[in-house]
Amino acid sequence: MKTTENQFKELLKEQDAYREALSLVQWDLRTKIPEHGATQRAEVIGLLSQKIHQLATSDQMKTLIDQLKGKTSDPILQRSVEDCEEEYNRSSKIPDEEYKAFITLRSKSESVWQKARAENDFSLLQPYLEELIAYNKKFAKYWGYETNKYDALLHLYEPGMTTKVLDEVFAQVRSGLTNLVKQIRESNVQPDENLLKHHFPKEDQKAFSLDILEKMGYDFDSGRLDESIHPFAIGINRNDVRVTTRYDEQDFRMAIFGTIHEGGHALYEQNIGKSLIQTPLASGTSMGIHESQSLFWENFIGRSESFWEKHFDLFKSYAPAAFQALDFSSFFEAINEVKPSYIRIEADELTYCLHIMIRYELEKALIDGDLAVKDLPEAWNQKMEDYLGIRPTSNQEGVLQDIHWSAGDFGYFPSYALGYMYAAQFHKRMAEDINIEQVIASGDFSSIKDWLTLHIHQHGKMKKPLEIIKEVTNESLNAQYLLDYLTEKYSKIYQL
Amino acid sequence: MKTTENQFKELLKEQDAYREALSLVQWDLRTKIPEHGATQRAEVIGLLSQKIHQLATSDQMKTLIDQLKGKTSDPILQRSVEDCEEEYNRSSKIPDEEYKAFITLRSKSESVWQKARAENDFSLLQPYLEELIAYNKKFAKYWGYETNKYDALLHLYEPGMTTKVLDEVFAQVRSGLTNLVKQIRESNVQPDENLLKHHFPKEDQKAFSLDILEKMGYDFDSGRLDESIHPFAIGINRNDVRVTTRYDEQDFRMAIFGTIHEGGHALYEQNIGKSLIQTPLASGTSMGIHESQSLFWENFIGRSESFWEKHFDLFKSYAPAAFQALDFSSFFEAINEVKPSYIRIEADELTYCLHIMIRYELEKALIDGDLAVKDLPEAWNQKMEDYLGIRPTSNQEGVLQDIHWSAGDFGYFPSYALGYMYAAQFHKRMAEDINIEQVIASGDFSSIKDWLTLHIHQHGKMKKPLEIIKEVTNESLNAQYLLDYLTEKYSKIYQL
Repeated sequence: MKTTENQFKELLKEQDAYREALSLVQWDLRTKIPEHGATQRAEVIGLLSQKIHQLATSDQMKTLIDQLKGKTSDPILQRSVEDCEEEYNRSSKIPDEEYKAFITLRSKSESVWQKARAENDFSLLQPYLEELIAYNKKFAKYWGYETNKYDALLHLYEPGMTTKVLDEVFAQVRSGLTNLVKQIRESNVQPDENLLKHHFPKEDQKAFSLDILEKMGYDFDSGRLDESIHPFAIGINRNDVRVTTRYDEQDFRMAIFGTIHEGGHALYEQNIGKSLIQTPLASGTSMGIHESQSLFWENFIGRSESFWEKHFDLFKSYAPAAFQALDFSSFFEAINEVKPSYIRIEADELTYCLHIMIRYELEKALIDGDLAVKDLPEAWNQKMEDYLGIRPTSNQEGVLQDIHWSAGDFGYFPSYALGYMYAAQFHKRMAEDINIEQVIASGDFSSIKDWLTLHIHQHGKMKKPLEIIKEVTNESLNAQYLLDYLTEKYSKIYQL
Repeated sequence: MKTTENQFKELLKEQDAYREALSLVQWDLRTKIPEHGATQRAEVIGLLSQKIHQLATSDQMKTLIDQLKGKTSDPILQRSVEDCEEEYNRSSKIPDEEYKAFITLRSKSESVWQKARAENDFSLLQPYLEELIAYNKKFAKYWGYETNKYDALLHLYEPGMTTKVLDEVFAQVRSGLTNLVKQIRESNVQPDENLLKHHFPKEDQKAFSLDILEKMGYDFDSGRLDESIHPFAIGINRNDVRVTTRYDEQDFRMAIFGTIHEGGHALYEQNIGKSLIQTPLASGTSMGIHESQSLFWENFIGRSESFWEKHFDLFKSYAPAAFQALDFSSFFEAINEVKPSYIRIEADELTYCLHIMIRYELEKALIDGDLAVKDLPEAWNQKMEDYLGIRPTSNQEGVLQDIHWSAGDFGYFPSYALGYMYAAQFHKRMAEDINIEQVIASGDFSSIKDWLTLHIHQHGKMKKPLEIIKEVTNESLNAQYLLDYLTEKYSKIYQL
């Protein structure tokens, strides 16, 4: 048994080394690579992805899984075997040729999307989306599902989650949110975000971002902050977890909230248990749980009154003269302004989930066959009007804004809203152990970080997402906490 | 034959993709990686190196070489087959286990060297050097040689070069140089390098470095400039050739000459013929020819009077107030000051080759068995006294200063001096086609860059180093050009 275990560990290590190389290549592609270097780099990505896939579906892998499953006394190995088995089943069910064709289509489609968006021409992307959806339907069939085809895709990003649960919680959240948005529209308080739109030099924004990241407990000996068009966090290895942000000199919010958000992701990856290193378990357990960490830091901490009361002077010390006369309450209201808008990644804390639900409903309909791709732009615009009361005047600010579908990713979007609900549920539970506002007001976040590490981060993929929710909060997903939190916060700001 | 050719091309592509990934990992390791990320990254380096080695020594490779050698009509394929055959023979002659042990020893030894140098304790490194030399001797035997064991190692870095040739040209250069150094010591002109040692902010040095790189014709769409402890250039792929430099705020020379030097290496890699991409031929043909390009730019251009006459105002526009009163001739003399010193990488243009000869003679003696490792520090100090007239007072500024030997690299050092001689020989030949001083004085270097591309860069490894020398200059290596160039330049500066 020891020999078999060691063989398995060696295989995991090899797979992990390929994954690490691939992550570095991807980080570089989005941060440092010179323009002309990218074409040939695609070959590297192809090769490394292929190697990872080959190892995951190799006969050796299958044999080791069969020999070890349920027979090792090492819990980390046992869970790794299960994870590899899921991956083996998922990957080996797709015929090799079909998988390759899908990968090629994806990467073509991504560049077509760039062009389609730039030229505001959905028809360019339409045939690619049709093909990508056809593949996703086929894959869902290969993988199997109980009642809804879409569940098979959802499972990729949020194991255990179903459309049945989502339909229910999303309906609850939608009704609560639309009600809140309506009240806010009628409120006498109307924050003025223009107060925040003064020139703020990039270098000073960077210094402020670094300062805040450090306060969050982000370990700079195991990470670094860079710049990219779309902010992201990436665990290259457990001791090299990098974040990026984007500097808009006319709107500092982009950089600072981007940094806090990605910093939240990074804290998760930096604090995974060391015993999981070089196994497939050394990363966040699902997209939804990951997003709960970034949103917890970005919103529950980073957009809270206590946080800015504590750091308003610090902010001013980095900010140019134009900000110095700003009073605290105008500032705080402005960074929490609620205003329906077209672009998801620029949405405020409150309307954000509505953007997600629109995508969820549309992609479910696309996979179920209830919606044809050619009708997608109109369906998108109609839902925007129904949920947010505004109608995009172009596909650029409508259906073409996100990369996900053109990258073949269906079932991913719900994670963003799930993350939000999880975060609220964790927040509620954390408040039983910690006086959260007091901790935030102190500027020393270590007890919050430690709580998250203890209950979530350290486990990596040792626990499945729904297991974590259940064990930490003693109940299953409950959307009410998010509604309560938002109602309390925004009732106060908007004097509802 | 077409099928076999395509199989071979696919194999080359795969090998090249691994090499590209490895280069990126190495670039990152020296520029961006956070401190704690490096330990696990070693596994990635190990895996990628192993894959490259496996492909190079695979049965498939051997079969394809045998099928294609002398039988393809495509000259690039033919030369690639030859290159792969050399690599196959070199690699497959070393037993796998021995090679692995050597690689492990190397990486251990490199970290021991760090410690030995920091603590000024040669005895820490001694056992490692003894083992590394034993391996090198064994390898030389496996690879074979005609008269001198050391030739087998030299061949790794400078194919076709022999100790017989080196002994001859080095003797000639040494006698010329020591004579010049002696005259300079007795000259009435004594430049004052302290004139250059004013605080020069890093950001301004960087802006100046970027400006000069651009003037050299370095393509920023296919490369970038970063910072590292030891400046280097690296071709990640042919359209992604990066350079680094180091900023010393008390001595701007480090950054600017480092940038020009590495920029010279980078121009070589950026201008290799596009038809060689994804073959083993898409890189510089030897260490010596590579060094000829960096030294050509650093010294023949970057330390020339015409260059600084043209760019002195530009320099002052970036330099702080303390530099503004500096007159041109004091400045020019100061950047060309000749003064025997302990550290190779800080040596001036004239004494630099003497540092190399010392290393050459010592490593040859170590490989031949004429010198024991335990006697190395004393032998080093004695040669410093003989050739440069100064004796190191510690091993830190003596035998422990360079990483090469502790990394198992013997036979590499001569490339630096060869590069110098090649550069002078190219310079002489270029002067027949181009009025070099006039071009430099114009500040538009494109005709120089084009000449180097036409005669050297574009060929990559299609031509061997000695072939290039012969074809371009119509004679074999001739050290007299270097002596003539140095004598002329320094006679003028020091009024000899």
